[in-house]
Amino acid sequence: MAGTITEKILKKHIAEGIPKAGEEVAIIIDHTLTQDATGTMAYLQFEVIGINRIKTELSVSFVDHNTLQTDFKNPDDHRYLQTVAAKYGLYFSRPGNGICHQVFLERFACPGKTLIGSDSHTPTAGGIGSFAIGAGGLDVAVSMAGETFKLKYPKVVGVKLSGKLQEWVSAKDVILEVLRRINVNGGVGKVLEYCGDGVKNLSVPDRATITNMGTETGCTTSIFPSDEITREFLKGQGRENQWVEIIPDENADYDEIIEINLNEVEPMVALPHSPGNVKKVAEIAGLKVDQVSIGSCTNSSLRDLIIVAKAIKGKTVSENLHMTISAGSRQVVEHLIESGDMKHLVNAGARMLENTCGPCIGMGSAPCSKGISVRTFNRNFEGRSGTKDAKTYLVSPETAVATAITGVLTDPRTLGKYPEFEMPHKFIVNDNMIIKPLPLEKAKKVQVQFGPNIAPLPDFFPLEDELSGEALIKLQDNITTDHIMPAGAKILPLRSNVPEISKHIFEAVDSNFYERAKEKNGGFIVAGDNYGQGSSREHAALAPKYLGVKAVIVKSFARIHLANLINFGIVPLTFKNPEDYEKIDVGDELIITIGDLMGKIILKNVTKNIEIQVTHALSESDAEILKMGGKLSWIKSKIKY
Amino acid sequence: MAGTITEKILKKHIAEGIPKAGEEVAIIIDHTLTQDATGTMAYLQFEVIGINRIKTELSVSFVDHNTLQTDFKNPDDHRYLQTVAAKYGLYFSRPGNGICHQVFLERFACPGKTLIGSDSHTPTAGGIGSFAIGAGGLDVAVSMAGETFKLKYPKVVGVKLSGKLQEWVSAKDVILEVLRRINVNGGVGKVLEYCGDGVKNLSVPDRATITNMGTETGCTTSIFPSDEITREFLKGQGRENQWVEIIPDENADYDEIIEINLNEVEPMVALPHSPGNVKKVAEIAGLKVDQVSIGSCTNSSLRDLIIVAKAIKGKTVSENLHMTISAGSRQVVEHLIESGDMKHLVNAGARMLENTCGPCIGMGSAPCSKGISVRTFNRNFEGRSGTKDAKTYLVSPETAVATAITGVLTDPRTLGKYPEFEMPHKFIVNDNMIIKPLPLEKAKKVQVQFGPNIAPLPDFFPLEDELSGEALIKLQDNITTDHIMPAGAKILPLRSNVPEISKHIFEAVDSNFYERAKEKNGGFIVAGDNYGQGSSREHAALAPKYLGVKAVIVKSFARIHLANLINFGIVPLTFKNPEDYEKIDVGDELIITIGDLMGKIILKNVTKNIEIQVTHALSESDAEILKMGGKLSWIKSKIKY
Repeated sequence: MAGTITEKILKKHIAEGIPKAGEEVAIIIDHTLTQDATGTMAYLQFEVIGINRIKTELSVSFVDHNTLQTDFKNPDDHRYLQTVAAKYGLYFSRPGNGICHQVFLERFACPGKTLIGSDSHTPTAGGIGSFAIGAGGLDVAVSMAGETFKLKYPKVVGVKLSGKLQEWVSAKDVILEVLRRINVNGGVGKVLEYCGDGVKNLSVPDRATITNMGTETGCTTSIFPSDEITREFLKGQGRENQWVEIIPDENADYDEIIEINLNEVEPMVALPHSPGNVKKVAEIAGLKVDQVSIGSCTNSSLRDLIIVAKAIKGKTVSENLHMTISAGSRQVVEHLIESGDMKHLVNAGARMLENTCGPCIGMGSAPCSKGISVRTFNRNFEGRSGTKDAKTYLVSPETAVATAITGVLTDPRTLGKYPEFEMPHKFIVNDNMIIKPLPLEKAKKVQVQFGPNIAPLPDFFPLEDELSGEALIKLQDNITTDHIMPAGAKILPLRSNVPEISKHIFEAVDSNFYERAKEKNGGFIVAGDNYGQGSSREHAALAPKYLGVKAVIVKSFARIHLANLINFGIVPLTFKNPEDYEKIDVGDELIITIGDLMGKIILKNVTKNIEIQVTHALSESDAEILKMGGKLSWIKSKIKY
Repeated sequence: MAGTITEKILKKHIAEGIPKAGEEVAIIIDHTLTQDATGTMAYLQFEVIGINRIKTELSVSFVDHNTLQTDFKNPDDHRYLQTVAAKYGLYFSRPGNGICHQVFLERFACPGKTLIGSDSHTPTAGGIGSFAIGAGGLDVAVSMAGETFKLKYPKVVGVKLSGKLQEWVSAKDVILEVLRRINVNGGVGKVLEYCGDGVKNLSVPDRATITNMGTETGCTTSIFPSDEITREFLKGQGRENQWVEIIPDENADYDEIIEINLNEVEPMVALPHSPGNVKKVAEIAGLKVDQVSIGSCTNSSLRDLIIVAKAIKGKTVSENLHMTISAGSRQVVEHLIESGDMKHLVNAGARMLENTCGPCIGMGSAPCSKGISVRTFNRNFEGRSGTKDAKTYLVSPETAVATAITGVLTDPRTLGKYPEFEMPHKFIVNDNMIIKPLPLEKAKKVQVQFGPNIAPLPDFFPLEDELSGEALIKLQDNITTDHIMPAGAKILPLRSNVPEISKHIFEAVDSNFYERAKEKNGGFIVAGDNYGQGSSREHAALAPKYLGVKAVIVKSFARIHLANLINFGIVPLTFKNPEDYEKIDVGDELIITIGDLMGKIILKNVTKNIEIQVTHALSESDAEILKMGGKLSWIKSKIKY
């Protein structure tokens, strides 16, 4: 994979390890970001580490998830985050300023830098040529403390784009096409690196839409070159000095190639309940729709909302449905006002929500019972919208607005003339809602403010050599972090409180899990393939740990969740023979002899009196972390204060 | 009270009774309005009445309260309301179109008409000279069925305004001054009729701010003349043809006079936890503030938001606090965009919420723990903000924006130069989010759509001659409907479901009430003065009825709640000697012999073996309604189908 963008950036950042696919490497992290739903926990952990100032080049704390504020919990969290940022030298993006990924792209992201963020859609910054990885909050905390970030050196897939998108087709359709081809686990262990002539026909926000939703393939990250288009974007943001060219060598050596002719991409749609369940819009057009929601970190850029505004100008949102719009940032909103496009949206009857994640994470705007919701978002997991029996379809802004006009799922090409629009060359820059880091002396005096729902982190103890207990639950393939630890308006406010949020674990799939786990004093989780896909939320590991889960035994893991399990001292095991999944039932008594984790692991199903072969892909340092009961104990033993 | 506006309008609408203060009269209702938090119940009741089309001149169903949609309940309610409106011939204002009172004022309200609305702030339309009364949903349903509305003929207070408001002082300060003088029960049994030279210096939206918050005095309604200012406003809305002049005679005979010199009004503030707890802002300026919220049916007009925008132009919301803005209508938003004022708001960092009630009813934007919230709203009852230990201060938009800039409660006169602004003479009229009534033939075919949380109304049985049971709870003075049946993001979504919402009754003051009432199979409520002040929500009567409450015995009642108790068959009794309040304790066994309600009522406290003298102010028809178990049974027996 010589000559790829991935190699070029990683080469400059590797602190330890051999740059070979599958090998563990430790990389230096330049930038971090957090959002409020994962951030409170990340900073609670950072405070436990106990250093007095972040050691990264740049770290930004955003508030964009928990913004409904149905009681004191959200605003208490925001106050905590604001005071923590002030105390430790972070930038703080105030609530209302915008969605972390959009604002980070506009105001912070730099080509060639490494970024980790406690949000799975952190690869959005890959649109500008940043090597941006989603991670658990603890990994972000550890990076802020100046430690390297460890990852399996990825394979690099060259996604070779040629041609140019047709009218009414946009970046979202490209990533849906990628998902159609490789599905929700086709990116595991890989970087999707976009290349080819077609790249120049995509703007930075277009590219960011693609790298953002690339997360849904399970990949380590997605990245675009940093080229003249990138330079223009940075110039428009007043940040041209942060531009560096990063393009692949002509003979760059990709592990795999996916070819996509942009000319041939059609409007696409991901059907319920998987982002990988992709068809052409034309194939299912006519479906009656109850709600259209536009926005989210995938599709809330200025271009996206301009096209929506121009398409609906002078029309009215169909009486059959409601349309919501959540812009990605105040910059986007200010442009929409200035260009008159905001007026078209309001005029048409769009419900203008705050500049936040909103409906995408079930934070309001839930559809009606059995509702069909057409959304420009990146995930359509069951129940994620806030309505359990609703069905969510993922589309481009073009398809969304066409649907809002007609009331049924509509191929936007049937709308007729494609609106003309021009993007600004110079963006409206207004950073007054981003509080800058305080100088050290001032920062030291800041008092961090807590609220009654912000609970201290529970203590986690070292792992014993033999783990015993019951199989507490047995799950199918593709269990998402939304299955493990639901989000939404009711549960997200508990993110700063491990004991409280733990009561909701597996709520959607097994309402008695919490009681059973408490009664049995912990045990084991058994599941199929791609366990833990979706979000970076470490609460999906923290809560099981808190309830005494000792190991998770599955056919395969999703990357970030695997890392989170290690971080919180839960042993992640895989069946050597996937069919052995059948040999464990709920309630079976298991004993797992793990020793120091680097030798043979023996799983004995005591109930069935059989031995099952299990394995893992842990590195030595993973094993060390696990044995110490998690990364927080490990980092505290390691860091130089 | 000859020659007053009140007399002139009521004279044209009285169907039965003598127009003399304190006498019951039946008036013909021209217009009705509902909002979604009370509307679902009103229409469920309307459907039980069983006629196939409304009989009012105009009825409008709004959606503005339950708009967060944290699950299926809100959107199911909205769908129900939309289909009910289509079936029975109502206008339907779609979610996002605006706050009912603001939109009604702009697009529907007419001088000289009678209006009842299932929202206590319905008197907003009094700003345009409509005789507008807040009522329970059942009264609205009955009016839509063509029946008259009964009320005690009010005394008329002439609120004589002279002079002109100073810079940085506005209509909100006037109504706060009224509240300072007469407190939260000073308007009971009265109409506050504004007159005098000063009236001409107040625009229609200014007047509407005053009549809106007049509700907090407990008055029947508040009203302004319909004059040239009114005509100009209607002309600007393209409704000049709906204007009629209604001014008091020069020698109009008021029962009382309150004189206010507008020149002398200063910025005022209502302190926690009562709108009647009013001081001058200057007296408590400097208080550290955590949140500023601008909007609500009191202060979300174009003028209010223009002044906020111009005052904060080029500045930034203080880092100490958050500022939210909820505009009253899409018309307001469209003007703000066109004038550039929206840009100033966004630029300054205001969090722009939907055009709904929002934070005013605890529907999001709750303050932080122990937070100080400065709001342009009309109520600051304890816990109403969504945060139990927060403290809410009610102020004008001028004071709110000054506070947002400085971070502490600030007298706006310290801001310096008063912004120049001009109001449009012609408003942007865009009714595309108001669905018009369908013709009868089409309407008949509409299928009303329910959701799983929309429960049929429970049956209520006739009252027995003797009521027995325990005193279930004993409460102090000024118990609000928020104490009886809390609103907020968690409970409002249950408004269509009596069994479910009943679980939350008295939650804030006595967390075991529900269980106790269930266990005891109902009983009695005992309270002090002004019981039931605040909202028109009939759930504060429906839930007790559902739990078997047979009578409420208090020192005095608030008007709308009294009517709601009668409507749902709960006997409203008052102590003949207020000190007898001391003679009942929680748990005492009571027997009340009510007979036909028109003779002597005997309350026997069996536990203490004493008799207590109680009375009521029920009319014969009230008694008839009560004996039948409530108004729904009564109307069904009475109506001609």
